[in-house]
Amino acid sequence: MKAIEWRNNRLIILDQTLLPLEEKYLELNDYHAVAEAIKTLRIRGAPSIGVAAAYGIALGALSIETRYCSEFLPLYQQISAEIASTRPTAKNLFMAVERMDHVVASGTDVLQVKISLVDEALKIHREEEEASRKISTFGADLIQPGWTVLTHCNAGPLATAGYGTALGVIIAAHQQNKGISAFATETRPLLQGARLTALELKEAGVPFKLITDSMAGHFMKKGVINAVVVGADRIARNGDTANKIGTYSLAVLALAHGIPFYVAAPSSTFDKSIESGNDIVIEERKPEEITYLRGQRIAPENIDVANPAFDVTPANLIAAFITENGIIRRGE
Amino acid sequence: MKAIEWRNNRLIILDQTLLPLEEKYLELNDYHAVAEAIKTLRIRGAPSIGVAAAYGIALGALSIETRYCSEFLPLYQQISAEIASTRPTAKNLFMAVERMDHVVASGTDVLQVKISLVDEALKIHREEEEASRKISTFGADLIQPGWTVLTHCNAGPLATAGYGTALGVIIAAHQQNKGISAFATETRPLLQGARLTALELKEAGVPFKLITDSMAGHFMKKGVINAVVVGADRIARNGDTANKIGTYSLAVLALAHGIPFYVAAPSSTFDKSIESGNDIVIEERKPEEITYLRGQRIAPENIDVANPAFDVTPANLIAAFITENGIIRRGE
Repeated sequence: MKAIEWRNNRLIILDQTLLPLEEKYLELNDYHAVAEAIKTLRIRGAPSIGVAAAYGIALGALSIETRYCSEFLPLYQQISAEIASTRPTAKNLFMAVERMDHVVASGTDVLQVKISLVDEALKIHREEEEASRKISTFGADLIQPGWTVLTHCNAGPLATAGYGTALGVIIAAHQQNKGISAFATETRPLLQGARLTALELKEAGVPFKLITDSMAGHFMKKGVINAVVVGADRIARNGDTANKIGTYSLAVLALAHGIPFYVAAPSSTFDKSIESGNDIVIEERKPEEITYLRGQRIAPENIDVANPAFDVTPANLIAAFITENGIIRRGE
Repeated sequence: MKAIEWRNNRLIILDQTLLPLEEKYLELNDYHAVAEAIKTLRIRGAPSIGVAAAYGIALGALSIETRYCSEFLPLYQQISAEIASTRPTAKNLFMAVERMDHVVASGTDVLQVKISLVDEALKIHREEEEASRKISTFGADLIQPGWTVLTHCNAGPLATAGYGTALGVIIAAHQQNKGISAFATETRPLLQGARLTALELKEAGVPFKLITDSMAGHFMKKGVINAVVVGADRIARNGDTANKIGTYSLAVLALAHGIPFYVAAPSSTFDKSIESGNDIVIEERKPEEITYLRGQRIAPENIDVANPAFDVTPANLIAAFITENGIIRRGE
């Protein structure tokens, strides 16, 4: 089960909205389809979004039929802008777009630029894979034998186009025979925990329990959770971290119960351009994600709904960041 | 829309599992049907469970065909025991059963006992109605003009066979033209907030937003929540309170944000027989409530699930109890 693959100048993605009921791969032939796949969460998770964005831009560039830079450039910019506008929070998306734009800016020959764009996308993918592998290994060192680790949303192979960040840490600790187990929150509204994390934990053979988001505090109070590890969508210079809605509540609860709260993320998620979490744009998604579930209405019609997709956890609630360059503890 | 009504020696209930899609009333003719309705949450909410239990026992007793106490008693005890075994947490259930048992214990004539049982059930219902009306009025005094009040699960008319406890407070404050608004958590797994509270707030004309359970902390941090009011299923002598799973997390979050956390409950929910929350039995419900939603599977098959229906909020997190006898503040 691979989230994303570049094959014969086509992008193959696993449609994550259909999991776990159906394992369906989509072949994306044009960049509009990639933009749609990112917007609708067929591909999701900050690192995967970055990788998909890069491939999407490459796909768009390949389809431009001109040899002249002067004609190529405005068309390229349109593609780059459409991909960049798909989702506002994940830093990796903008990092990938910037890197692709940089390739174009420094090129002079259209054919060579196209080749370089594909190379750059493949490189971004490889780097994310490599980063997630290192994150998993560094993070596993923080997990003590016998621990039960809670994670929220999905930061596994599907989310990272690699080995996984938060979930990679849990799977790596399990593979080191530490006798660990996990709790996965279902992660409403789109159930990434129930649909994706549960699937990946099951496939990896990690003993785990699926719970609703509202149960985390109860199990922390009972003393059965030893650590919380989550991914991130964007990390500000001061360490404030945007991640899936519900993460902030888990961080407050972890602090109240003396449980370490870790954020696992590649350096592509760190945004040096913003000072604090106040500068992070929080995506508000459509109300139907809450009032409908898989096509079925579950709430009265014509009501007001709030649906922020992310929240911001202040740096002071985060015990450490797990990155491909090692563990960064608070104050370092 | 009335949750529960006694008519011509039959119990009429609104099937709350079908709301908000369908408003269907069921006529229950025998006590097994009442037991099933309580178990499957067709009727739910601590006060409503107590009222339904009393009517269920009356229904059962009426169907016993004997004039002799010696024959009546063992059959009655079977009925009483079956009703008592439907759900383990709501104190109101056991209070109602005890009161009905007491009527039987002090009677000598079977016909007279049957009449008295119906009378007692009607009395329990009237008392709960009256209590919820007073709770709503007392509670509304705590709500300042312009406040936004968060509630969890459903503690409105449907849950209380009356005016509502936590939701009654919100509706009463709205009817006093205080310009208040509300946030309702959807309350997974069975979505009582999305299905029932949203419906009752909409019908009462209270401006509100529906959110997922995981969003509460985010909105507390943003400063848009001024108070949390919830109901209760059982309150121990020291004030520890069992309520729908997720309540404890909200209480911890409220404390962290300096937001008052109120519990609204009739005296029938207070259990003087237990010292603390450690003595409260927490109902564990079936895994399918989490892995399926309205018949659709939303998680992988054959996975481990935890599904505690309630959690316990320690007394020290509760700013005040709102009862029909007035407000009880911590330390009183």
